[in-house]
Amino acid sequence: MRFDEAYSGNVFIKSHPNFEESTVVLYGMPMDWTVSYRPGSRFGPTRIREVSIGLEEYSPYLDRELEEVKYFDAGDIPLPFGNAQRSLDMIEEFVDQVVAAGKFPLGMGGEHLVSWPVIKAIYKKHPDLAIIHMDAHTDLRSDYEGEPLSHSTPIRKAAELIGPENVFSFGIRSGMKEEFEWAKEVGMHISKFDVHKPLMEILPKLSGRSVYVTIDIDVLDPAHAPGTGTVDAGGITSRELLASIHEIARSNVKVVGADLVEVAPIYDPSEQTANTASKLIREMILGFVK
Amino acid sequence: MRFDEAYSGNVFIKSHPNFEESTVVLYGMPMDWTVSYRPGSRFGPTRIREVSIGLEEYSPYLDRELEEVKYFDAGDIPLPFGNAQRSLDMIEEFVDQVVAAGKFPLGMGGEHLVSWPVIKAIYKKHPDLAIIHMDAHTDLRSDYEGEPLSHSTPIRKAAELIGPENVFSFGIRSGMKEEFEWAKEVGMHISKFDVHKPLMEILPKLSGRSVYVTIDIDVLDPAHAPGTGTVDAGGITSRELLASIHEIARSNVKVVGADLVEVAPIYDPSEQTANTASKLIREMILGFVK
Amino acid sequence: MRFDEAYSGNVFIKSHPNFEESTVVLYGMPMDWTVSYRPGSRFGPTRIREVSIGLEEYSPYLDRELEEVKYFDAGDIPLPFGNAQRSLDMIEEFVDQVVAAGKFPLGMGGEHLVSWPVIKAIYKKHPDLAIIHMDAHTDLRSDYEGEPLSHSTPIRKAAELIGPENVFSFGIRSGMKEEFEWAKEVGMHISKFDVHKPLMEILPKLSGRSVYVTIDIDVLDPAHAPGTGTVDAGGITSRELLASIHEIARSNVKVVGADLVEVAPIYDPSEQTANTASKLIREMILGFVK
Amino acid sequence: MRFDEAYSGNVFIKSHPNFEESTVVLYGMPMDWTVSYRPGSRFGPTRIREVSIGLEEYSPYLDRELEEVKYFDAGDIPLPFGNAQRSLDMIEEFVDQVVAAGKFPLGMGGEHLVSWPVIKAIYKKHPDLAIIHMDAHTDLRSDYEGEPLSHSTPIRKAAELIGPENVFSFGIRSGMKEEFEWAKEVGMHISKFDVHKPLMEILPKLSGRSVYVTIDIDVLDPAHAPGTGTVDAGGITSRELLASIHEIARSNVKVVGADLVEVAPIYDPSEQTANTASKLIREMILGFVK
Amino acid sequence: MRFDEAYSGNVFIKSHPNFEESTVVLYGMPMDWTVSYRPGSRFGPTRIREVSIGLEEYSPYLDRELEEVKYFDAGDIPLPFGNAQRSLDMIEEFVDQVVAAGKFPLGMGGEHLVSWPVIKAIYKKHPDLAIIHMDAHTDLRSDYEGEPLSHSTPIRKAAELIGPENVFSFGIRSGMKEEFEWAKEVGMHISKFDVHKPLMEILPKLSGRSVYVTIDIDVLDPAHAPGTGTVDAGGITSRELLASIHEIARSNVKVVGADLVEVAPIYDPSEQTANTASKLIREMILGFVK
Amino acid sequence: MRFDEAYSGNVFIKSHPNFEESTVVLYGMPMDWTVSYRPGSRFGPTRIREVSIGLEEYSPYLDRELEEVKYFDAGDIPLPFGNAQRSLDMIEEFVDQVVAAGKFPLGMGGEHLVSWPVIKAIYKKHPDLAIIHMDAHTDLRSDYEGEPLSHSTPIRKAAELIGPENVFSFGIRSGMKEEFEWAKEVGMHISKFDVHKPLMEILPKLSGRSVYVTIDIDVLDPAHAPGTGTVDAGGITSRELLASIHEIARSNVKVVGADLVEVAPIYDPSEQTANTASKLIREMILGFVK
Repeated sequence: MRFDEAYSGNVFIKSHPNFEESTVVLYGMPMDWTVSYRPGSRFGPTRIREVSIGLEEYSPYLDRELEEVKYFDAGDIPLPFGNAQRSLDMIEEFVDQVVAAGKFPLGMGGEHLVSWPVIKAIYKKHPDLAIIHMDAHTDLRSDYEGEPLSHSTPIRKAAELIGPENVFSFGIRSGMKEEFEWAKEVGMHISKFDVHKPLMEILPKLSGRSVYVTIDIDVLDPAHAPGTGTVDAGGITSRELLASIHEIARSNVKVVGADLVEVAPIYDPSEQTANTASKLIREMILGFVK
Repeated sequence: MRFDEAYSGNVFIKSHPNFEESTVVLYGMPMDWTVSYRPGSRFGPTRIREVSIGLEEYSPYLDRELEEVKYFDAGDIPLPFGNAQRSLDMIEEFVDQVVAAGKFPLGMGGEHLVSWPVIKAIYKKHPDLAIIHMDAHTDLRSDYEGEPLSHSTPIRKAAELIGPENVFSFGIRSGMKEEFEWAKEVGMHISKFDVHKPLMEILPKLSGRSVYVTIDIDVLDPAHAPGTGTVDAGGITSRELLASIHEIARSNVKVVGADLVEVAPIYDPSEQTANTASKLIREMILGFVK
Repeated sequence: MRFDEAYSGNVFIKSHPNFEESTVVLYGMPMDWTVSYRPGSRFGPTRIREVSIGLEEYSPYLDRELEEVKYFDAGDIPLPFGNAQRSLDMIEEFVDQVVAAGKFPLGMGGEHLVSWPVIKAIYKKHPDLAIIHMDAHTDLRSDYEGEPLSHSTPIRKAAELIGPENVFSFGIRSGMKEEFEWAKEVGMHISKFDVHKPLMEILPKLSGRSVYVTIDIDVLDPAHAPGTGTVDAGGITSRELLASIHEIARSNVKVVGADLVEVAPIYDPSEQTANTASKLIREMILGFVK
Repeated sequence: MRFDEAYSGNVFIKSHPNFEESTVVLYGMPMDWTVSYRPGSRFGPTRIREVSIGLEEYSPYLDRELEEVKYFDAGDIPLPFGNAQRSLDMIEEFVDQVVAAGKFPLGMGGEHLVSWPVIKAIYKKHPDLAIIHMDAHTDLRSDYEGEPLSHSTPIRKAAELIGPENVFSFGIRSGMKEEFEWAKEVGMHISKFDVHKPLMEILPKLSGRSVYVTIDIDVLDPAHAPGTGTVDAGGITSRELLASIHEIARSNVKVVGADLVEVAPIYDPSEQTANTASKLIREMILGFVK
Repeated sequence: MRFDEAYSGNVFIKSHPNFEESTVVLYGMPMDWTVSYRPGSRFGPTRIREVSIGLEEYSPYLDRELEEVKYFDAGDIPLPFGNAQRSLDMIEEFVDQVVAAGKFPLGMGGEHLVSWPVIKAIYKKHPDLAIIHMDAHTDLRSDYEGEPLSHSTPIRKAAELIGPENVFSFGIRSGMKEEFEWAKEVGMHISKFDVHKPLMEILPKLSGRSVYVTIDIDVLDPAHAPGTGTVDAGGITSRELLASIHEIARSNVKVVGADLVEVAPIYDPSEQTANTASKLIREMILGFVK
Repeated sequence: MRFDEAYSGNVFIKSHPNFEESTVVLYGMPMDWTVSYRPGSRFGPTRIREVSIGLEEYSPYLDRELEEVKYFDAGDIPLPFGNAQRSLDMIEEFVDQVVAAGKFPLGMGGEHLVSWPVIKAIYKKHPDLAIIHMDAHTDLRSDYEGEPLSHSTPIRKAAELIGPENVFSFGIRSGMKEEFEWAKEVGMHISKFDVHKPLMEILPKLSGRSVYVTIDIDVLDPAHAPGTGTVDAGGITSRELLASIHEIARSNVKVVGADLVEVAPIYDPSEQTANTASKLIREMILGFVK
């Protein structure tokens, strides 16, 4: 071992050391200050990286290996604790740069609100953007008890930005009555409870379009993802979620960015959620980036 | 905030503050002294209330909101530690009052033996009573190593009281050979392993009848409910349990009382079982009380 | 059991049901949105109440019983998630009312920043106020990476309000060099590492004065309080902390309010920290309120 | 390895396989059905045995090795769940046999009530019996909410049997006012908070007498023994408890039996309490049996 | 209770005390020193035995009771820490004796490498041996970073010994590309992702043959078995695994030995994995031994 | 944020990015394959780095800040799982380079056996070497059940290499009788139970000499360090350990290298041990490197 070959810190397994040469930029958004229930997702990205050493580099689902895609792990964006607005600004600025450099942004949360500035940044470049959203929760509130910057609002904001007809939610099993009604009124797609089957119906309609994929780990049943802020029974299995990612991979949509949010290690004593998240990141890299 | 509006303690979310005006009485039965394996369900009701703050008030399954049903959370019945007989007497007396007041009793355990005095109390008022029992275990022992008051006996006692032909067990995957044989001999219904499918067959036969629904959380697979005394692999998913509750809700049976028992927080480090239980309580309120 | 005698929810054991008749008001401040390291103290007050059922009502240290002091548990102030300024305003308004009614305010955190509005409220009524502060951390930053509302700043704010010569910190073992230097310059007392011995020296100097006591549970060694956001080795034992509270109780200072902050249940799998906190609350009630 | 030399199950490390040839009988009393707070000590003896494989066989405190004393691990007495009276009868009968055979009984709990039948059995043979009791709690209630068989009553019962002047409690920091008063009235010794120092004063007075030593693991501070039912801050360190055992070992009292109770593995995620208990058992064997 | 009837230590529930009279020998292989990710399976067998006290003795799946098959629990083979080669030699020698005595060997791991010496021992007696392998991982590496004795290599070694056409792997969802390619080249069967359905197709082809069944608990999804070294999302349910065991039980293959490996209690805070393993052991005894 | 300023992975807080310019090299030795009891320390270094973000950079004990010493975090040496000899060779080679470059080696374990090759490497350069060893265990076995490469042997090997009269052990409370006897015979210093007081006596005798300091985290009481393989009651407090490090810092010995070993995160659910270790590393950097 020579020192210049040595350790470059705790990065996602097999990350490429150089930003310029990479196709994908992986980054953490360690923010959880607006969550109404159980905080802790700020430590999600770090733990996902840590457990990624247990991953095989080959996907028997996609028959691809991590070495086929160059990805740079940029680490966690150093967000200011407790300041939601400044945090969102920093994320947007970061993703602006990633997009400007022509890289594929792959984010790890953090609470779901972090997806909002990412979508803003990507939409500037991809005005035909559609969103595929997998989640237990609608996240369609206009505000949470008067607070517009809340983990309950990102999809509402995104829908208002890119048009609700361009947002497709799957696996939803929780929300206020008003959120479901709003979606219906404005023509936003919501598939309750299931992901894979309705996704197979929607994907052909999105053929050729630019798509951002945002996955809240709590779309999984608590059995499959106990390590998250708001567990909600009745969710899908990790098999269904993997199959859904692979369905997108095999479709004709053009994925232009993605994220996986809400992994909270402190509720995950067996580290099963973090391990699952690291596998999902691998499949997203291998499936979404051609 | 005015003080007379202030906090009324840790109650199930959105409980109504007044007994008289409520349709449902929610109560805890914090007893676990006869369990043969892992104790701890005495703290179940408290933890279910605590995590209920993470619940949405709306059920996208039933399209109802908690504010449509008034329920009073009466707290935990103050049972005497280690004295099974006196505990059961106190529960029966409590439910007698609830039933006398024309309210719907919705109990939270505690070990499964607590269902026995509840059923006794309800049967006095509803002599046409049938029982829908979802559980991993038969609970049909006549005694446990000589002890008739045991968490292994409540369904046997209930069957002997209301007639075994009026008891319908679902999801059973554990018990002594003698228990299964006894059920067969006396004509009691047992569906092994599954809940939803056999329930769909039985429900039409119970049309119009008074039914008590007792759910042992361990009918769920340990993946879905690790936080219980006696975990037993091969159980159903939380999706199947939710669907089963909704099937009853849509049927023509008249639910006259219900309980959810055996949640033990200490085996539930991620609190997923307590969170699931609080969602099940919501669905039982919205589904069973018209 | 009659229903009008029934359960009043999860309150601190033996709380008096009536605000007016009580001498002490116990309240939770469930806020943790500015913490820089591990969040979770928002659930501290609820868990402290929950485990208080394990407490004896008698203090063999002080030879007093809880029934000798009437205290009302007002529950948690419903703070808006992620909004620090509004949360602090609500706390101040709440304590204003408590103080106006002539009650002794006894708060449970939540992060340490919650002490700041409490001190503001009390100082209005008690302009001779001194503060006894027990903590691992100085909490004397003027801001945290540009953010003045931070869990690292409350004692600085308090010192600037009431005069640094009136603030007495004990048990401090962590902070920035600048914080220690600032304290020295402005004449604020800091006892490093120890609490009981230096407190015995300071107390006679405060004889007859109004004193607010703020205890960050992390003044205890991590062995004694693992369940907190920022554990820091080298702390004091629970025996020393108890003895320090009793020292104040036996002194001639006039305690006019107190708090205990930073209990975070999720890092406390054995619930030892919450149990210790509930005992400390008992001793504070019996020791500080004559 | 030959099969007849093979595994003899999970016994305390280096146990002697033969009852007749042994000087000490080690046994478990897996009962926790009368506890008012957190149950789980029924699994204490099993876990203490399991972790004993991590023990060194030599005590550098006493300069003795486990092979110098023959002890037989009789396993757990198969107590009937939930039936306190029958459990106590079985324990008494078991210890009667141990005492009759001239062996030293060394018990592992289980809740503290199990000490009561042991003391009864030993007192029959040793009418000059004194008791050394180390505990956080007085355990001097005459009953617990009307129930005389409670984990809060064993020392009261013992004091009434052998005379309160023969009972010496150490480390006590919790109890009802009435319990402390009763002890004072009847002349029973209670040392509050400390163990080692007052024990050094008492031991000379017991010189030559038969003594039973009963240790509730919660005499240790929760920092040293989180894995117990009722943790109570302000306790002693494991160093002080070890020193106290060694003090007895070096004294002129004649220890005729001993127990260690209230280890509850489920509150002990790091297994530190079970490991400490296994070391204490080693020191009790080497220190109490000459 | 008489002492000669007493406790025989922590053995699997209802074990027969006598080797000679037993049909099955149950044994632990407490080795985890070559694992590349999370160690801890050395404590698997002990914990499986411990929790087996929660098992019913009757299988409602197979309608058999444990008393119908005599099995001797030989305990853990005392393997030398850190020495893989000597450990494997000891295991082989142990199983040689079991096989020579005409008993059915049923092993509990420990890491998967322990299956290799068992298969060697059994193959000597059963040259027509086929292997049914259920696992998340291929375990087909020839070496792990130069080390041929690794937990990643046992099935490769077995395939090379008995012929790859005699090895049938099910449930595989992780491995290196080279491993899958090697299997394809040499004609070894691998069913990706699923177990039950492909097993139903393969079993008729094995009719009448001697079969060894090796189950890595991680074939289960992490939801069903968090307590293992290398969790991998997308696995099967415990229902599917139970059904697969029962399928073998009902087939015409002649099971001549079996094992269940990789249970690691430290990642299993609810003990659900150990409980599931103990149920699987019961079903393997009742299903594989006629 | 510019990308070339970005994240350099999970390194110990405030590490210097450049090896050449640094005075200290911090490195992990993730090996635990020879431990006889509980494995898991292979993940110690990673977790210590991760939690170091919670550290203040200033030491109020030493009045120094981390920016006063340049240290390079070289990451974990990529040791081959299960191969003790090759692992030790790699460590020795690594430290040879560090020493050759004139840097101060500061290692993080991993099991204690990793100290052995470090000491070998340092002794080549510093033939006047003395060792200060703080530990619960003697670690003086010549072999462990025939295996010379064991976590029980490193101090024996070191003593044989540099002369037993140059090895000074403190805090020892566990070992075989033979180990204590051997030390006595060969004139090696062992202070039983205590560290700080005997260290103060020894340090003047080592004045001016080159000293290697090796700290096994289990010298701390389990209350202060539950997260380690072999917890042993009766240890010292973190205050005493900090004071001992500071005593060395203020003495006239010339520390030429140091390590901190045996942190095992999986037994540390509150992360208190990892946090304490990160503070100890800070104090070792600031105290040992002038």
